[in-house]
Amino acid sequence: MASVARSLTSCIFCKIIKGDIPSFKLVETDFSYSFLDIGPLSKGHALIIPKDHAAKLHELPDEYLADAMPIAKKIAAAQGLENYNILQNNGRIAHQEVDHVHFHVIPKPSASDEEGLVVGWPAKKPAMDELKALHQELVDRLNKV
Amino acid sequence: MASVARSLTSCIFCKIIKGDIPSFKLVETDFSYSFLDIGPLSKGHALIIPKDHAAKLHELPDEYLADAMPIAKKIAAAQGLENYNILQNNGRIAHQEVDHVHFHVIPKPSASDEEGLVVGWPAKKPAMDELKALHQELVDRLNKV
Ligand SMILES: [Zn+2]
Ligand SMILES: [Zn+2]
Repeated sequence: MASVARSLTSCIFCKIIKGDIPSFKLVETDFSYSFLDIGPLSKGHALIIPKDHAAKLHELPDEYLADAMPIAKKIAAAQGLENYNILQNNGRIAHQEVDHVHFHVIPKPSASDEEGLVVGWPAKKPAMDELKALHQELVDRLNKV
Repeated sequence: MASVARSLTSCIFCKIIKGDIPSFKLVETDFSYSFLDIGPLSKGHALIIPKDHAAKLHELPDEYLADAMPIAKKIAAAQGLENYNILQNNGRIAHQEVDHVHFHVIPKPSASDEEGLVVGWPAKKPAMDELKALHQELVDRLNKV
């Protein structure tokens, strides 16, 4: 039975890690647990979850964050995927449904909107001055993080 | 001037890392370079790119993969984001436009389809037998990866 650094008794993903809820386990490490999504967007849709209960990505210690993408690589390689999306949502309006960080590995077997992630891309063309001011602001804040 | 482990002269992201094309740099480490997207989906949309030219996630060495999410965390924290998506696309039909791995950090300031990532979610309900068979197949392949 796996342990969870920070755990929430009411959290479905904490329960899955502990084995209290069954799952189709794929890769497990000291920091992460991965399994098949039972409501997949496409065949092989998998989830990678840190073994630490945090709602959002910026609340997780770096060792959990660092562990996720090498696992995504293993899962994509095992499936022989050529087209796929890695997605991690934070906050309800950004489509997060379970408040325990999870990374989706979503195969995109065809261009159809009927399977895999469907992506809308409302790109803007901001003025260079605007980007420059934003950049300066962010660099200042990054120096304080 | 930063170096790129594997580099492609025709690649716009390899050029950005080397400084041959200017960019609004945010965080730089030994393995990664991050900067503001100049065609953002929302204010603060940033990209994190590995300092190694690989088209797709499963082609990158683990040390580059491990470095990306701690940087996403720094960027999200500096912006004070509460709602945001992390997205990494592989392959043209999965919306990859530049063939050098890149992780998007996309703020979602409102629920509007006019800003931030727009997500479509065509979820399926596969039979348990089907999931079980797929799981067995994947576990076998994961043991060989
Ligand atoms: Zn949890
Ligand atoms: Zn490149």
